[in-house]
Amino acid sequence: MSKRVFFFGEGRTDVDSPDKAALGGKGANLCKMAALGVPVPPGLVIPTSVCNEYTEIRKLPDGLMDEVRTKLEEVNQQTGRIFGGSEKPLLVSVRSGAPISMPGMMDTILNLGLNEETKKGMALETGNDRFVEDSHRRFIQMFGNVVMGIKHELFEEILEEHKEKAGAAVDTELDASALRELIEEYRKLVKKETGQEFPDDPWEQLEKAIEAVFHSWNNERAIYYRRMHAIPDALGTAVNVQSMVFGNMGDDSGTGVAFTRNPSTGEKKFYGEYLMNAQGEDVVAGIRTPQPIAQLEKDQPPAYKQLIDIQQKLEGHFQDMQDIEFTIQQGKLYILQTRNGKRTGFAALKIACDMVDEGVLKPEKAITRMDPESVPSLLAQVFDPAEKSHAVSQGRIVGKGLNAGPGAASGFVVFSSEKAHQYRSSGKKSILVRTETSPEDISGMEAAEGILTSRGGMTSHAAVVARGMNKPCIVGCSSLRVDEKKGIMTIVTEDNKSIELSEGDELSIDGGTGEVILGLMKTRESEIQQALAGEIDGEKSEIARNFKRMMEWADQSRKLSIRTNADTPKDAKVARMFGAQGIGLCRTEHMFFEGDRILAMQEMILASSVEQRKRALEKILPYQKEDFRGIFDAMDGFPVTIRLLDPPLHEFLPREEADFKKLASALNIDVELIKRRAEELHEQNPMLGHRGCRLGITYPEITEMQVRAILEAACESSASGTDVHPEIMVPLVGKVNELVMQKKIIQETAEKVFQEKGSRVEFMIGTMIEVPRAAATADEIAAEAEFFSFGTNDLTQMTLGFSRDDAESYIREYLRLNIYERNPFQSIDQDGVGAMVRMAVDKGRSTRSGIKLGVCGEHGGDPTSIKFFHGLGLNYVSCSPFRVAVARLASGIAALESKA
Amino acid sequence: MSKRVFFFGEGRTDVDSPDKAALGGKGANLCKMAALGVPVPPGLVIPTSVCNEYTEIRKLPDGLMDEVRTKLEEVNQQTGRIFGGSEKPLLVSVRSGAPISMPGMMDTILNLGLNEETKKGMALETGNDRFVEDSHRRFIQMFGNVVMGIKHELFEEILEEHKEKAGAAVDTELDASALRELIEEYRKLVKKETGQEFPDDPWEQLEKAIEAVFHSWNNERAIYYRRMHAIPDALGTAVNVQSMVFGNMGDDSGTGVAFTRNPSTGEKKFYGEYLMNAQGEDVVAGIRTPQPIAQLEKDQPPAYKQLIDIQQKLEGHFQDMQDIEFTIQQGKLYILQTRNGKRTGFAALKIACDMVDEGVLKPEKAITRMDPESVPSLLAQVFDPAEKSHAVSQGRIVGKGLNAGPGAASGFVVFSSEKAHQYRSSGKKSILVRTETSPEDISGMEAAEGILTSRGGMTSHAAVVARGMNKPCIVGCSSLRVDEKKGIMTIVTEDNKSIELSEGDELSIDGGTGEVILGLMKTRESEIQQALAGEIDGEKSEIARNFKRMMEWADQSRKLSIRTNADTPKDAKVARMFGAQGIGLCRTEHMFFEGDRILAMQEMILASSVEQRKRALEKILPYQKEDFRGIFDAMDGFPVTIRLLDPPLHEFLPREEADFKKLASALNIDVELIKRRAEELHEQNPMLGHRGCRLGITYPEITEMQVRAILEAACESSASGTDVHPEIMVPLVGKVNELVMQKKIIQETAEKVFQEKGSRVEFMIGTMIEVPRAAATADEIAAEAEFFSFGTNDLTQMTLGFSRDDAESYIREYLRLNIYERNPFQSIDQDGVGAMVRMAVDKGRSTRSGIKLGVCGEHGGDPTSIKFFHGLGLNYVSCSPFRVAVARLASGIAALESKA
Repeated sequence: MSKRVFFFGEGRTDVDSPDKAALGGKGANLCKMAALGVPVPPGLVIPTSVCNEYTEIRKLPDGLMDEVRTKLEEVNQQTGRIFGGSEKPLLVSVRSGAPISMPGMMDTILNLGLNEETKKGMALETGNDRFVEDSHRRFIQMFGNVVMGIKHELFEEILEEHKEKAGAAVDTELDASALRELIEEYRKLVKKETGQEFPDDPWEQLEKAIEAVFHSWNNERAIYYRRMHAIPDALGTAVNVQSMVFGNMGDDSGTGVAFTRNPSTGEKKFYGEYLMNAQGEDVVAGIRTPQPIAQLEKDQPPAYKQLIDIQQKLEGHFQDMQDIEFTIQQGKLYILQTRNGKRTGFAALKIACDMVDEGVLKPEKAITRMDPESVPSLLAQVFDPAEKSHAVSQGRIVGKGLNAGPGAASGFVVFSSEKAHQYRSSGKKSILVRTETSPEDISGMEAAEGILTSRGGMTSHAAVVARGMNKPCIVGCSSLRVDEKKGIMTIVTEDNKSIELSEGDELSIDGGTGEVILGLMKTRESEIQQALAGEIDGEKSEIARNFKRMMEWADQSRKLSIRTNADTPKDAKVARMFGAQGIGLCRTEHMFFEGDRILAMQEMILASSVEQRKRALEKILPYQKEDFRGIFDAMDGFPVTIRLLDPPLHEFLPREEADFKKLASALNIDVELIKRRAEELHEQNPMLGHRGCRLGITYPEITEMQVRAILEAACESSASGTDVHPEIMVPLVGKVNELVMQKKIIQETAEKVFQEKGSRVEFMIGTMIEVPRAAATADEIAAEAEFFSFGTNDLTQMTLGFSRDDAESYIREYLRLNIYERNPFQSIDQDGVGAMVRMAVDKGRSTRSGIKLGVCGEHGGDPTSIKFFHGLGLNYVSCSPFRVAVARLASGIAALESKA
Repeated sequence: MSKRVFFFGEGRTDVDSPDKAALGGKGANLCKMAALGVPVPPGLVIPTSVCNEYTEIRKLPDGLMDEVRTKLEEVNQQTGRIFGGSEKPLLVSVRSGAPISMPGMMDTILNLGLNEETKKGMALETGNDRFVEDSHRRFIQMFGNVVMGIKHELFEEILEEHKEKAGAAVDTELDASALRELIEEYRKLVKKETGQEFPDDPWEQLEKAIEAVFHSWNNERAIYYRRMHAIPDALGTAVNVQSMVFGNMGDDSGTGVAFTRNPSTGEKKFYGEYLMNAQGEDVVAGIRTPQPIAQLEKDQPPAYKQLIDIQQKLEGHFQDMQDIEFTIQQGKLYILQTRNGKRTGFAALKIACDMVDEGVLKPEKAITRMDPESVPSLLAQVFDPAEKSHAVSQGRIVGKGLNAGPGAASGFVVFSSEKAHQYRSSGKKSILVRTETSPEDISGMEAAEGILTSRGGMTSHAAVVARGMNKPCIVGCSSLRVDEKKGIMTIVTEDNKSIELSEGDELSIDGGTGEVILGLMKTRESEIQQALAGEIDGEKSEIARNFKRMMEWADQSRKLSIRTNADTPKDAKVARMFGAQGIGLCRTEHMFFEGDRILAMQEMILASSVEQRKRALEKILPYQKEDFRGIFDAMDGFPVTIRLLDPPLHEFLPREEADFKKLASALNIDVELIKRRAEELHEQNPMLGHRGCRLGITYPEITEMQVRAILEAACESSASGTDVHPEIMVPLVGKVNELVMQKKIIQETAEKVFQEKGSRVEFMIGTMIEVPRAAATADEIAAEAEFFSFGTNDLTQMTLGFSRDDAESYIREYLRLNIYERNPFQSIDQDGVGAMVRMAVDKGRSTRSGIKLGVCGEHGGDPTSIKFFHGLGLNYVSCSPFRVAVARLASGIAALESKA
């Protein structure tokens, strides 16, 4: 018979190699610390296998409690206490501990072992009657509720009655004798509700508590939770029985939390705080002011010395900064918990690099010590810290939205792109405030310092574009109402004050926190970016030096190439500065919104014949070509994937009556014609409408013009010495025939261009995989496509049936209800959308084994998604310029972890 | 070495079992007729395998032409002519003939073998110099273009010059000598363009023509076509070399077409027409008036007698009515082609039943002789034929749209649901004319006789609902403009006249043809429906008797159950009359639009708290319950699948300012509140928005109310003796967690209802599979769902990324360009959407082997789709009541064909 109960305690454990699956997360960690010789409060762990036995036979296995008795004897010995003893009684906690943390199950019973007898011993030790009685009444309440199934409210009612009787506002005002009365009432309640006396025998208490943990594995809530999270029933839970320790047993007792290094700056200095004669909750509650940890050296020199040794041992063992909870009971130190400490991005970078320099951490492992998501915080411009705290104290933080684009921005409120431009040209900074944004606003977003919208989610137009531009941006600020026409924004504060701002009023937004702040504040650029741009000497900046090393370590490990989504030469250059190895998505439509270009585009859309359309397209051609040349030159030596026109045409037409008229006079056509055409182009569901390659198929002349612009530019750049690698990408293909048709036009146009130019360039033709049908028929499509680029934004929309623009409301609810664990637009839905990607990869390779595979959706910059794409063996991911560093780091980590 | 050239001719062929893959479609059919002893013009077929040889070695295989020579000798013998002979010369046609008909390849060269020598012999026989010269110049032009690669325009230019010179308006005005001159010019052109003389040697002509056919298999257009249609390159084409016959060789020659039975009525009478001394094109061109076929008995008694024998033989062999083309050359009859004849639905029904009665056709095969798509024409009400032709002659047909709902309707123009109701209540018929319809119009559509819209496609709201109601309906009438506010419709006729109609003007629409007709016309109901409804004696109606037999034969063979999509007790009853075996989709939202119900629904939507919402829902409950009771009773003994609320809530709110005000006063709330809520609910892409189970999850009280209504109704119907089988269906599930959550609510509500009622009914809980993600994770979902119902409308929208409401414009273009072969909303896209269904079926069965599987999208009534669903082994399809008979027939045929 295999042993069913395991001991852990100071300096030793029965368990050879602590394993989460067998012992649960909690139990395994306790055993680990014990094995390291760290003084943990001793205890027992009953493994998950016993839970399965229990589930089968619906009772504790025969002999289990005998083993518990035997093993608890070791706990008695190590603590010098006796379970059930009237002197120095051993009290224990009983906790569930599944391999995966799982709400819905029984959590914790504290102070088990208390009864009238053991209470006396405890009172003797603590000298605090009230504390002992309060512990007892809490124990009865917890046990009565969790183990005996008596409703929590019934206990609360009695408590309330007693508080009233004693004239006590809060329960801490009840004294020991009042609590004793209360306990009597609790006992009566238990008898009344269950027909049984409350068990005073500690062994009976323990047996019932253990059974209750196992029982709770199969309660309704737990089963429901497991179904919702696809957790197998057979996992089971372990039970942890651990001796209680008290930091409030006098002046030689205490409790505290500490970090092995400074979690904010990364400085190598033991950091934390503690309270003597207190319990853990006192430190958290903030009733008394905790002492800085260094003070402990004076209060408890041996404990402090031991703590210093332990923190070094733990940091060395885990090769990472640790967050430690400890309790000192009558001079004896216990470590209750250690875990990798949370830290800022700045601290993470410094700690990892320092540990490499200290020889604690191997360079190739250093990247795993950083959260790639913390990189943008290193690169974002920030508010001057003093000004920010000043604003807080003045109550100028008036609203909060989603922190959609990093960094801090300050400026004057504007409500239109035009105004943003006006402000910029007169040297003033502006914040563009809108209900939501559309492609027409792009130039205004560019001109403004930051963007604030009342609608939209993390993947709304404003959010995506702002992240691409690395602009501070807050979206979905629901307390904000914007009346663009009147030029007024109204924001309702938490305390229900309504604040109205007009154009030209001063406003600041913190894209890192989502805070909307009244007034102007100073900002500064990140040191790293200044160094990368050569504006300061990178070698002299510790953070820039560390950043460079970190990126190099990531590059050494990663398998994925990192490209960028960039639509302009400027973006391409920025991305290259951050290490991009090409462009994965160049959206040609963004080129149409600048200056006069939009007019030619609108003329094209309003054309009433193919000839007219071609004439309008000829006007656009030189613009596009010029942009492409700049992009090719910026990406010299790297591939550039250019997507043919994608958005529905109505996005290029104005919406307001006044703008219709302006356009009509600019093009010298009837305003009614424009309105009619706009109406014709209006769609119920534009996401599923006339866009993508559907445009190129119904208007082949658009494809012709674009291909001509791309390849003329490529020939010219090549002639002037640039190493060009154009990749022409057909969007929204659902059926291979669409690609076949577009490919024919591309190839024919290419031949014409090459003949005209008298020179050729190599180029590829591929497609986006963003329609589920394309994934399902990727074998057919790969026969025609030289590369696939997964457009995971659209693929998510269609696979899930979630409109990016509309889903934010119910996605929030879905996340709250745990239907999805992550926003599927932020992190790829691996089981659903991921399954589509996997299918397309497998099918694509089946007909073209070496097909080039990449991702150009927003997920290309998300670390969790990058890990998934790495696992599929894709060739590259592409993300916005300011996330290139995130992706480099994340893909390095993914490669490292998949090796381990 | 296998033989590479095969002979076919009168009474015999070298081929044992003619096979399309080996001989191509054309060749195989010719051999088949030859084997039956039918006199076909003799000829040779060179199989597809030779094409592959040619593709490999890029020339005709050695010895092939020797085999051709040998075999052509047999043709000489059977025709009594000599290829290349100066007397009675044998002329041949050379045609490609692939296993799949394939444009883009070389099609046909006629009169091959003509030169100055053979021309003489031909002139002698026909006595028509002009005809011979014209044949020759056509041959040179055809051969010169197709085989020698000279541009068609160059020949045309010369022809035009000669016409000008001769003062001829059309080429038939050129006489023999002018044609001879033209031929000389053609010869010069050939010499100039190719440097070679035009080949006069018939054998050289033949060799080059054969080679040209094989060559054309790999020309650009053919390859492009194959790629677009996923046709394997290895299929290859056959070559058919067939002797020419001429119906214009004098008064003992002629040509005609005939049907073995009347294709319009089905009457058993040989039917057709012919012309003596004429070519096939003369019959088609209508220059001379053809004679009825019976006349041929007098003109050519032996040929007529032979033709009668042959038509009987062919009908007997194919067990189907045949469409025959024949030519008589100097008294000798040749059959050029036979194929199953096209016929009306009425004819098809009568012919099949007659043939069964005649013992020609086995009853179980009779169903394959009907096109299920012709069934609605048998059931639709029609215009009085005399009135219709009167309208045509008066030029009252003023427009044409898509024939979206069958049948004929006449009435007064109305532009709103309200008006339609007013007209009906005053006993007047109306035609509802709108730009497009929305769920709000449903009651108006019900009240009107027919519906006409200017927008939308075959699956637009108007079309789908109209078909469900079996209402005559025309959608997408693009020459129509509707101004609902002004109450004016304007229609622009083909000859550019603009006709304006106002409310109350008379209008008729023919939903069978899509014609819009001015004025009122009499209509009558179909005889079959009158018989089914018991309004006439079905036994006395031949068509009703035949229809009943046909349906019974279909039922004997089919494996799929046929259910119906019905939302009201009335629809359920109609569907049951047509043979529905349950309800596959009951859309509860349609119940909300009648009378006061919409107000309660709107109150629910506008509620500002859960309590308010619950109060409004309580008002809706009794309505829903009443409907469900009626439906359960109508479907006594059969399953009824009820879908929980599906459409986005904004569909229930008004859109016009005036209606906002009305609603505000009806509910006694602020109009601004309504507007704000409507704005909040507005979505960019409502199809991908807050709808389906997303509603039930964010507003669980809606699910509770609906489940309560369903199960209270079920308990009550059951108590009064009805055999109820409710199936509760959760819509738009994409992730199993959604179903888990909704299931919990359903089960908890069910328990409450059963306890309250003191009785239980059995019911199932299942889900729709309509989101691609659901298909991809169907194994997980099936663990929770007792049934899947494929919502193929939505599944098509999301899998293809096509919005039903918007896609019509580019789908039309896509069909024209052959990107899709069928409208994927009408007939399921088997490779894409079908792949999703197949995946879901396989995955679903992997975790729940006996899971019940059905289809409730529009495709459930489409014969091609039904065949596909039969192939997947689904349990049922569900369609609108008036398509139940279509589905019965189609599934019978599918089962029969899959056995064969």
